[in-house]
Amino acid sequence: MPSEFSITRTVEFSETDMAGIMHFANFFYWMEACEAAFYRSIKLPLISFVPGNVVGWPRVAVSCEYKAPLRFNDVVQVKLLVKEVRTKAVIFVFQFRKLSDGKILPEIMAQGEVAAVCVTAGVDGVMAAQPIPAEVRAKLELAPAGSYAR
Amino acid sequence: MPSEFSITRTVEFSETDMAGIMHFANFFYWMEACEAAFYRSIKLPLISFVPGNVVGWPRVAVSCEYKAPLRFNDVVQVKLLVKEVRTKAVIFVFQFRKLSDGKILPEIMAQGEVAAVCVTAGVDGVMAAQPIPAEVRAKLELAPAGSYAR
Amino acid sequence: MPSEFSITRTVEFSETDMAGIMHFANFFYWMEACEAAFYRSIKLPLISFVPGNVVGWPRVAVSCEYKAPLRFNDVVQVKLLVKEVRTKAVIFVFQFRKLSDGKILPEIMAQGEVAAVCVTAGVDGVMAAQPIPAEVRAKLELAPAGSYAR
Amino acid sequence: MPSEFSITRTVEFSETDMAGIMHFANFFYWMEACEAAFYRSIKLPLISFVPGNVVGWPRVAVSCEYKAPLRFNDVVQVKLLVKEVRTKAVIFVFQFRKLSDGKILPEIMAQGEVAAVCVTAGVDGVMAAQPIPAEVRAKLELAPAGSYAR
Repeated sequence: MPSEFSITRTVEFSETDMAGIMHFANFFYWMEACEAAFYRSIKLPLISFVPGNVVGWPRVAVSCEYKAPLRFNDVVQVKLLVKEVRTKAVIFVFQFRKLSDGKILPEIMAQGEVAAVCVTAGVDGVMAAQPIPAEVRAKLELAPAGSYAR
Repeated sequence: MPSEFSITRTVEFSETDMAGIMHFANFFYWMEACEAAFYRSIKLPLISFVPGNVVGWPRVAVSCEYKAPLRFNDVVQVKLLVKEVRTKAVIFVFQFRKLSDGKILPEIMAQGEVAAVCVTAGVDGVMAAQPIPAEVRAKLELAPAGSYAR
Repeated sequence: MPSEFSITRTVEFSETDMAGIMHFANFFYWMEACEAAFYRSIKLPLISFVPGNVVGWPRVAVSCEYKAPLRFNDVVQVKLLVKEVRTKAVIFVFQFRKLSDGKILPEIMAQGEVAAVCVTAGVDGVMAAQPIPAEVRAKLELAPAGSYAR
Repeated sequence: MPSEFSITRTVEFSETDMAGIMHFANFFYWMEACEAAFYRSIKLPLISFVPGNVVGWPRVAVSCEYKAPLRFNDVVQVKLLVKEVRTKAVIFVFQFRKLSDGKILPEIMAQGEVAAVCVTAGVDGVMAAQPIPAEVRAKLELAPAGSYAR
């Protein structure tokens, strides 16, 4: 029952902008990549098209605070922390830290938050929020609040 | 002295994801496009490389709440509202509303917020926050709080 | 029966990279946006989910030659030219030219090509190429070869 | 003196489109990521801002042929092959193959090509092509033509 999970990723040239730093919107792609890897690690689908089953986790609110810029070729850890599990929604916190010679530096470069709601979709494509299934809930453990306080 | 500004834009195929809706990160590109058009409209640079002058407005915090999905070919108004002008930072609110037959529908599909800080960069590339120049400040008028309350 | 079509678009900050120019991959998004607007203009769907009808036009081959860079805030015309209409596929050429004071400059900044095949998809999601429907074919006229020779 | 190099990468949710497959433009980001990792592996910079030295490798021509679609969570090898080293330019071929249970499948899902020219940039930002420096040339070995024939 994991309460945190992490991936390591390198800033690509295409992720920079003319200011020479990683464009702010790219942090959200990295959060989603970390979340997808987290779901793979616990053998749950981020999205499933099996009729009548969980279809997906559309975002209802996201945010990010930027403390210091990331640059091309920076190697970065993205850490996911389970902040809250509600009846129909889950809130993840994501922390970005650089690596130097394979060691994770303590400074938080950016911290984001994603609230996603569990939905099913009917044959007409209309999505409806639903309670998080028990087998999903069983695999989500809350991270200690101190681990993501800003 | 504008306190609001808007652009109209169409959801592209590449902006959708396998759930059939506009991917949540794309809303931030649209906010930035609206902000850039706003700066063009008031004859101010979003970013300038003239040495010693304003260099840019890196984001320090961004957020977005998603109320209803946007889909391929949806025509959408993005409205920028000046929420706050601090000594060294500005906060914009952005509202997304669909158009139908050229008329803006009242429903807010998504609402975002961007806090950007005014910086200069030295020859070493290091950025330092600076007070917003007077000629910029003179062109930013606060929107009424009621216009962006969620 | 149009053989060409164009849109005008401004280079966004997020489309630049640390070299200060529009990232090369973004030209393909612009081509697709022009193609989608072209299909809207002739009242045909770029993609349709009506069962049994045309589903879409996946790309089988794309290319782009870059002659000169585009930069932030450049205003650019993307022109689509119908190069070839085969039984099951269509080939479009796209030309990128800058505008100055509302006038299109003659220099071609980039020229791309997209070959898309007409497919239907069964209920199992498997796509199969199909002859271009007559009502689509009737709306595609070849551009003169001289208009897109490099 | 490597003539080929590869990375392995997973298709992210954000890289899909409403047709349920990886959007065609994303293949170019993967090619660039593979190229950047290749340069890191041979201790050469893909881009350098040291005045008077190699500045970068802007693309002059790119292309991609798509044989079969990639889908969310597919694990994919991108292999770079050095096709041609000219005086001022280099041409890479990239092949995309899926992995199954950690084994690379033989089928080529997509094959791309990138021609990049070696440039320096003056203090005015204007780029000029230059001969590939000897220390770079020394690290680029041609792949056998049979390895990338389509």
